[in-house]
Amino acid sequence: MPAPVIRESEVDVLIIGAGPAGLMAANALARAGTNVRIIDKRPAMVAAGQADGISPRTIESYGIGERLLREACQVHMAAFYNPNMTGGIERTGRAPDVTAPTARYPFEVALHQGGIEAIFLDSMHLLGTDVERPVIPTSIELSTDEAELTDSAAHPIRVTLRHLDPLDGKAETEIVCAKFVLGADGAHSWVRKMFDITMDGEQTEFIWGVLDMIPETNFPDIRNKSLVHSNNGSCLVVPREKDKIRIYMQLSDKDVLDPSTGRVDKDRMGPEQLLQVAQKSLHPYKLAPVDEIDWWTLYIIGQRVASRFSVKERVFIAGDACHTHSPKAGQGMNASMNDAHNLVWKLTQVLRGWADMSLLKTYESERRKYAQDLIAFDKDFSTLFSGKPQTHENEDGVTHEEFLRAFQTYGGFTSGIGVHYSNSAIVNNAHQSYASNLIIGERVPPRVFVRAADAWPYELQDLLPSDSRFKVIVFTGNYNDTAQRGNVDALAKELEKPERFLKVYVPGGKESMFDIITISQGKKEEVDYLEFPDVLRPHWSKVLIDDTDVTGNIGGQGYSYYGVGPEGALVVVRPDGYVGMVAPLQKVNDIDTYFASFLRPSL
Amino acid sequence: MPAPVIRESEVDVLIIGAGPAGLMAANALARAGTNVRIIDKRPAMVAAGQADGISPRTIESYGIGERLLREACQVHMAAFYNPNMTGGIERTGRAPDVTAPTARYPFEVALHQGGIEAIFLDSMHLLGTDVERPVIPTSIELSTDEAELTDSAAHPIRVTLRHLDPLDGKAETEIVCAKFVLGADGAHSWVRKMFDITMDGEQTEFIWGVLDMIPETNFPDIRNKSLVHSNNGSCLVVPREKDKIRIYMQLSDKDVLDPSTGRVDKDRMGPEQLLQVAQKSLHPYKLAPVDEIDWWTLYIIGQRVASRFSVKERVFIAGDACHTHSPKAGQGMNASMNDAHNLVWKLTQVLRGWADMSLLKTYESERRKYAQDLIAFDKDFSTLFSGKPQTHENEDGVTHEEFLRAFQTYGGFTSGIGVHYSNSAIVNNAHQSYASNLIIGERVPPRVFVRAADAWPYELQDLLPSDSRFKVIVFTGNYNDTAQRGNVDALAKELEKPERFLKVYVPGGKESMFDIITISQGKKEEVDYLEFPDVLRPHWSKVLIDDTDVTGNIGGQGYSYYGVGPEGALVVVRPDGYVGMVAPLQKVNDIDTYFASFLRPSL
Ligand SMILES: Cc1cc2nc3c(=O)[nH]c(=O)nc-3n(C[C@H](O)[C@H](O)[C@H](O)COP(=O)(O)OP(=O)(O)OC[C@H]3O[C@@H](n4cnc5c(N)ncnc54)[C@H](O)[C@@H]3O)c2cc1C
Ligand SMILES: Cc1cc2nc3c(=O)[nH]c(=O)nc-3n(C[C@H](O)[C@H](O)[C@H](O)COP(=O)(O)OP(=O)(O)OC[C@H]3O[C@@H](n4cnc5c(N)ncnc54)[C@H](O)[C@@H]3O)c2cc1C
Repeated sequence: MPAPVIRESEVDVLIIGAGPAGLMAANALARAGTNVRIIDKRPAMVAAGQADGISPRTIESYGIGERLLREACQVHMAAFYNPNMTGGIERTGRAPDVTAPTARYPFEVALHQGGIEAIFLDSMHLLGTDVERPVIPTSIELSTDEAELTDSAAHPIRVTLRHLDPLDGKAETEIVCAKFVLGADGAHSWVRKMFDITMDGEQTEFIWGVLDMIPETNFPDIRNKSLVHSNNGSCLVVPREKDKIRIYMQLSDKDVLDPSTGRVDKDRMGPEQLLQVAQKSLHPYKLAPVDEIDWWTLYIIGQRVASRFSVKERVFIAGDACHTHSPKAGQGMNASMNDAHNLVWKLTQVLRGWADMSLLKTYESERRKYAQDLIAFDKDFSTLFSGKPQTHENEDGVTHEEFLRAFQTYGGFTSGIGVHYSNSAIVNNAHQSYASNLIIGERVPPRVFVRAADAWPYELQDLLPSDSRFKVIVFTGNYNDTAQRGNVDALAKELEKPERFLKVYVPGGKESMFDIITISQGKKEEVDYLEFPDVLRPHWSKVLIDDTDVTGNIGGQGYSYYGVGPEGALVVVRPDGYVGMVAPLQKVNDIDTYFASFLRPSL
Repeated sequence: MPAPVIRESEVDVLIIGAGPAGLMAANALARAGTNVRIIDKRPAMVAAGQADGISPRTIESYGIGERLLREACQVHMAAFYNPNMTGGIERTGRAPDVTAPTARYPFEVALHQGGIEAIFLDSMHLLGTDVERPVIPTSIELSTDEAELTDSAAHPIRVTLRHLDPLDGKAETEIVCAKFVLGADGAHSWVRKMFDITMDGEQTEFIWGVLDMIPETNFPDIRNKSLVHSNNGSCLVVPREKDKIRIYMQLSDKDVLDPSTGRVDKDRMGPEQLLQVAQKSLHPYKLAPVDEIDWWTLYIIGQRVASRFSVKERVFIAGDACHTHSPKAGQGMNASMNDAHNLVWKLTQVLRGWADMSLLKTYESERRKYAQDLIAFDKDFSTLFSGKPQTHENEDGVTHEEFLRAFQTYGGFTSGIGVHYSNSAIVNNAHQSYASNLIIGERVPPRVFVRAADAWPYELQDLLPSDSRFKVIVFTGNYNDTAQRGNVDALAKELEKPERFLKVYVPGGKESMFDIITISQGKKEEVDYLEFPDVLRPHWSKVLIDDTDVTGNIGGQGYSYYGVGPEGALVVVRPDGYVGMVAPLQKVNDIDTYFASFLRPSL
């Protein structure tokens, strides 16, 4: 039989790997109407187990919160156990699981990785995008032609794909020419290896044992996240959806490895042995699965960060492909999805011809710094966690107070709320004082405002969706104050000028590329939305007031919460919900300059 | 051709009419696993228009809230307009649209009737129940055999159905023998007529004009509910989903009727004329549809209540079939769905063999009283609304203050929150003082408690779903207090005795027919759910504590809010969320007596 003709096609973005990072990216790109394909070598999605922790910031963003809140288990409380005098453990105390005062959802949620992936898969499917599987790439070539590399319309990457289970009559091999490739192919990333990207960090690997089950137990904190320090080995209990729980145990090489080969020996450490390890750690409490063990794994991981996250801003890696660390702080899935979240709006803006290719450089600068912080945190926290607890015999051990303090200090980090991007083309620190609590480089904290037209209370975060558009929030001050009204009217006039960003980039319609949101001081009984200048209310729903709802129970005090004074402020919010810049109402030209540094004027 | 053989079949419940009342019933019965069929004479569901207002209580109950909150428009604010000196109108003030301090959702929502019906249709469809249409009943016969009528397993009703559009080869006519029939067939109910049920009340009919559109306007309260009193005719503006609005106008006979025939003449009053009526009323504000009129109707209705709501507790009528009134207070759909909600749990309990047929008598006693109150309210409110406003020329007119006071006084009624069922087999007023704010005969007001096992804050109403089961809330007081623990342990012992309701009616399993919810005083950092007696925690999720969540922002003070003291209380909540009775912990026998009056001991 003659070899079938090899099909060759073009695509804007090819994603390799359909874990949390790849799926997050594929779904967001599909929603943005981008031409995207995603492949995975596994014949089917993850059915159970793997990562399961979702942090508060991840619930806030990306529009997946609604379904997460319906399906996942919420973790509000942490419990701390330490050795007691009789060789077992006892509770030292309970504390909030999340320490992040501005979190909209002040808790973590837990759901098995397949449940999380399904949220993306279902959403993509409705848009006609599905994962192609089982498919692997067998070669990848990036053009070296500078002209091609800098032309955002070119397809400088050539990838050969092999369909491992091709449909009858379909070719096994195809060639895809892509504008961009995302390697979201996990800790052993093929893409990373093809471009010789090294992983920096210690080479030590840690071995984790993980058990998922419905427990029969008299352990009183089985539905809380329990951090158990025990002289019989530490463990971490995480409650899960339905009646399930998960237990993490850090194992030592000798328990797991076959000394003759140095490889994991599943006869030494299978589910029964793992259960025994957990039982020892929880003594004197009883623990046994109601039925059988739901899922288990031995999970071997180092603490490392890739030296580069991109090759010429054409090939990117994200997720476990560029950083690996212990599962303890529950960051695996979150960091991976956040990488993708950071990248996709930039790709979308470039693909639409809105932004310059240079915007893509900020992906590596923002996310690699974050990954390094993550590893540093993971090391500190792991040491505390694995360290011997303080006891009579071991006076130098870790005290409960030390541990609790670390747990809470790191709250901003583990919750994802504290992520801070440094100065760059898209993070401009100039006028912070005009909105002193809308920290430039951090996400906009949640706050309720009421709509002027109908007094409907809205969470501002819900008006800042990840839809690839920049939002410009105009804090007008009190528009019913005559002097301030003059300032606002002057601003409106400025915004309408042809040289201003609203006109330079979107001559067609002001709603396409930027979203204007107006927030006025005033009372819902008095403000009339129709009085605001046209440019500040592209739609009646866009004017908010800093007042309570009709019951007086929610909303209000937003100006002072955000640190905005009666003189008002302009706040640019990036498509991913981070504050990009702040300016006084009189400095529209500073905003012009900000956008000019990475947007392309429309022709 | 020979007439096809007529098929004869049996069904538990046959519902005639698939408007809000019929669909609410069909969906609830299908969810309860009941054998139900529903027919409608219309070939397709309502596409636009008709009723659109959903009151706060309706959002709270039935599990439809989530989708309503996603799809519908929220109405928070009401605006009041009155004549000004120059022949037009001006705003007198704004006020909350809903005056019902305990409402969980302190607003109304608006969505066209088809959108509401779709919620039920989609839910039923997943359970395999769809509306059969176009189908009409052509005869109905109720057995007169007393033995058959009192045997809940008998099928004493014989209905002939005609399929107006039969499938090829299928018979046009069939005979259905039903245990129960529900006539939810609207204001001109065929079922009502077949059983000669009269409609009591004045025979006058009122004519309403209704317009739905996306408006182009400078009326500043177009997104609020605006009650416009004008010398050029009163009207009511209701904001709707997307950018739509609705305007209601009460019309006079001479505008609408052809004097020679006395019938509605659509040439006199079509959409253009209705628009002119609205424009006159809103003068000096401008109003025009952006595109075309979305929907319009002339809606003719009297204020009447059916003399009976049931025939021998075998045939029932619900919704517009038993009460009609003006659309102004937005009660049409709400009252109809609430009728069905009241009936279906009773039918389900009888069909399952749990309750005696006598339980069904409470449908008429509860809902007919409500309907009479509704008509009385509608008359008062209509008079105020249609009355001339007070002006210089008309000093006896209705003042804004009078009108606002009425609007707020009736808030409990229009919100649905104030519905109160009187003493009956299922409403027992005996021990009100043990939970003085859980008013016996009213719905349980919302309140957040935290789960003992995991500190997850839960809205109590969400733990009282409409699932056909009675809930018994055990307020234990502080279980860590030694004396009180004695009382609670004694109660637990009582509850386990074979003569107690938990054992008499459900020897099989305590979770099947009653749901026990335990609410303790105490602190989430200290309470261990495992300490509570087994009977008070059929599942770990069933123990709550009256404390705030970990942030201190939600929950707490529930005992005092509900008027429960440290001595605790037993509260029986009906399957529809209404308080059925209250008792001190020591009076389990009073609860036995309550259930004994309408439940059937299991064999
Ligand atoms: C067995 C296992 C157990 C784990 N257990 C835990 C845990 O208990 N707790 C925790 O927090 N984290 C755990 N993790 C880590 C967690 O799953 C990751 O941090 C998270 O999923 C990272 O997401 P990602 O999308 O970057 O990578 P992954 O989820 O690893 O997804 C990578 C995807 O790429 C695909 N792929 C890889 N190579 C190729 C290729 N050449 N061609 C095509 N497709 C390819 C893979 O099939 C996979 O679907 C576990 C991971 C594994 C593999
Ligand atoms: C044209 C119209 C306009 C309306 N406009 C408004 C409004 O603007 N605002 C407002 O608040 N309310 C309005 N209403 C009233 C509102 O629709 C009702 O109060 C509400 O729908 C009551 O619900 P229901 O289920 O009791 O009755 P309906 O919604 O009337 O449902 C009755 C159902 O029974 C079916 N049916 C009737 N007879 C038979 C039969 N013999 N065999 C089979 N099926 C049958 C009908 O096709 C219908 O689907 C309007 C009603 C109508 C008919």
